[in-house]
Amino acid sequence: MPRRIVTLTTDFGLSDHFAGTIKGVILSLAGNVELVDLTHEVDAFQIAGAAFDIAAAYRYFPKKTVHVVVVDPGVGTARRPILVEAAGQFFVAPDNGVLSMILAREKHTVRAITERKFFRDPVSETFHGRDVFAPVAGHLAQGVPAARFGKIVTDYCRLDFFQPVLTGERTWRGAVLKADRFGNLITNFHIAEFPAIRTRAFSLRCGVAEITKLARTFADGKPGEPCLIAGSSGYLEIAVNRNSAAERLACGAGAPVELTIDFSL
Amino acid sequence: MPRRIVTLTTDFGLSDHFAGTIKGVILSLAGNVELVDLTHEVDAFQIAGAAFDIAAAYRYFPKKTVHVVVVDPGVGTARRPILVEAAGQFFVAPDNGVLSMILAREKHTVRAITERKFFRDPVSETFHGRDVFAPVAGHLAQGVPAARFGKIVTDYCRLDFFQPVLTGERTWRGAVLKADRFGNLITNFHIAEFPAIRTRAFSLRCGVAEITKLARTFADGKPGEPCLIAGSSGYLEIAVNRNSAAERLACGAGAPVELTIDFSL
Amino acid sequence: MPRRIVTLTTDFGLSDHFAGTIKGVILSLAGNVELVDLTHEVDAFQIAGAAFDIAAAYRYFPKKTVHVVVVDPGVGTARRPILVEAAGQFFVAPDNGVLSMILAREKHTVRAITERKFFRDPVSETFHGRDVFAPVAGHLAQGVPAARFGKIVTDYCRLDFFQPVLTGERTWRGAVLKADRFGNLITNFHIAEFPAIRTRAFSLRCGVAEITKLARTFADGKPGEPCLIAGSSGYLEIAVNRNSAAERLACGAGAPVELTIDFSL
Repeated sequence: MPRRIVTLTTDFGLSDHFAGTIKGVILSLAGNVELVDLTHEVDAFQIAGAAFDIAAAYRYFPKKTVHVVVVDPGVGTARRPILVEAAGQFFVAPDNGVLSMILAREKHTVRAITERKFFRDPVSETFHGRDVFAPVAGHLAQGVPAARFGKIVTDYCRLDFFQPVLTGERTWRGAVLKADRFGNLITNFHIAEFPAIRTRAFSLRCGVAEITKLARTFADGKPGEPCLIAGSSGYLEIAVNRNSAAERLACGAGAPVELTIDFSL
Repeated sequence: MPRRIVTLTTDFGLSDHFAGTIKGVILSLAGNVELVDLTHEVDAFQIAGAAFDIAAAYRYFPKKTVHVVVVDPGVGTARRPILVEAAGQFFVAPDNGVLSMILAREKHTVRAITERKFFRDPVSETFHGRDVFAPVAGHLAQGVPAARFGKIVTDYCRLDFFQPVLTGERTWRGAVLKADRFGNLITNFHIAEFPAIRTRAFSLRCGVAEITKLARTFADGKPGEPCLIAGSSGYLEIAVNRNSAAERLACGAGAPVELTIDFSL
Repeated sequence: MPRRIVTLTTDFGLSDHFAGTIKGVILSLAGNVELVDLTHEVDAFQIAGAAFDIAAAYRYFPKKTVHVVVVDPGVGTARRPILVEAAGQFFVAPDNGVLSMILAREKHTVRAITERKFFRDPVSETFHGRDVFAPVAGHLAQGVPAARFGKIVTDYCRLDFFQPVLTGERTWRGAVLKADRFGNLITNFHIAEFPAIRTRAFSLRCGVAEITKLARTFADGKPGEPCLIAGSSGYLEIAVNRNSAAERLACGAGAPVELTIDFSL
């Protein structure tokens, strides 16, 4: 068996044993795995931020990587676990929309994970990361074929939080997906869908700011001036040179964003 | 040599080189090791929280795993390092009671680590993680037998912070072991020792709250209402649905907890 | 190929996908790599703290380790990436002085990394960690010889923030390199260059404090009393027993420090 990679994206934080414990479960099942923390600092109960992070990262991993996403406000309720095959990789997550951005972008197969023999026994009510998601990931990394975990389903949850809505002739309403560690506000406007902002006059409103400038790099803006950047993930980000846009605009995840592009001329 | 796993539980935090440096020491000694961070965010100088975390996690790791615990307010003083064999695994820690919960639960052998040839030379006064605990872990992972590190001792430190005390006919006084990242207050009452709360009326007091309800999942409680849950580690936790019990009750590690069970009828 | 170690020192934090994404890039290029996080919590835009951390850690890693340092306020500007060979190890970093403490201490070769075939294509304007530094590290770990990344240069950036300046007959002015997680203030006075403080009366001023005592361990000082310690890295640290010196002295990275040694007698 060549070495398999398993990534973890959770809201467990790093001050408890949770992330370490699920690593123990995975390593007990799969001898030759390399574990990679994507992040364990997803805002508890925030789906969009985790959805953005896993969507920004997965394509940089090798084929057959197993991505485990445990952001599950509904733990212990009826939220079923799903196994997604897409882009030659595997994604194990609760069926709560956290994989929506990947599902919108890649051809995919979605299975409901129903085969309980791949879970720990008993399954606790409050730690499905340890008892459901980790053992499924371990078995997958060990080479168990996807089909053995459960049947293909089509009624899985898809959210469209990452899709701005046309609200006027040349105006779209979107939202901030998350504020990153530098305070940059990552919007759900993707440069590939709004290429006109490179050549047309535009206005993007968020919080108290109205932004009309597209900068090339974070260092491009005047100190203190919010500007727009096509971020490394392709999504437009509101940034302030050497400063936190989140603080300057007093905005965070979920804040509304309105973009107007001037197509006249 | 098959791959060995070494876990780390420290109060080093993640903003300094400390955890990385001890990984360098371990990897320099043991070529085929997989390192797992349990947590580096133990409250500096808190023994009970670290004791809880390592006790909640170790059983999910494979045999022969080496667990390194460096939570050592007494660094540089006479606190000796110990090596514990229990549950087919190894534990390297200062002799300050941080392994008490495991020692109470598993058959064990405890050695005082005295063989200085397994330390770095010289041993600094302030970073025994790097100069004592990491090299011992590296040599263990490389296959050096436990007996070579030092003699078996019986006068090691055992604390009983995890053991509630009977204070009335049907009343026990315990304490909060730690508040986890979600603000759940993990008490030292284990469901296996207090199964009666599943079937009897009870009252658990902590801070300003009196709790009389045992919930099945975090989502079970009414919004804002503190309730009790048998946590994934087996210890009873005080939780508030989608909220921080620690903040609501203004309590944290060490806070007293009183449980009364109604055995009438 | 034996397993290679790649360490990461960045200002990415842990709440985003950044560190995970660059790990994916490295693992996609180099099959048999062990990744070690040195720290991702470098103060954004702080060079001295990162410089201290990598300098404190590298010597504990095996030969051929690849250290990646991405602390780059100038991302997207003309800051070139460099590849340093020193102490039998490799260092990949922006040419902004972050390796100065290592360059001052070890014999070294410095190359400007110009061979774009080792970068991702295209290179984003804002995430050189992913598109430049990570792929270079991956290729290095995979065995590509250093000489293939670019030519040797001698005009690289060297800063001297870690070098106290003589300002009087027996007085030096230095600075705090960083405050560590425990609040200890790590100064740029190295015990090897100021051995006299072990035997002579001295006075070290920082913030509101004047310190005249060299303690052996953190536990040595009286509660609340700032004292000086020769830290595990060799640099003198201002510490307060079981307390944060940074808070007590209201000082942090960059704060001036003045040392006077009494050579009379």
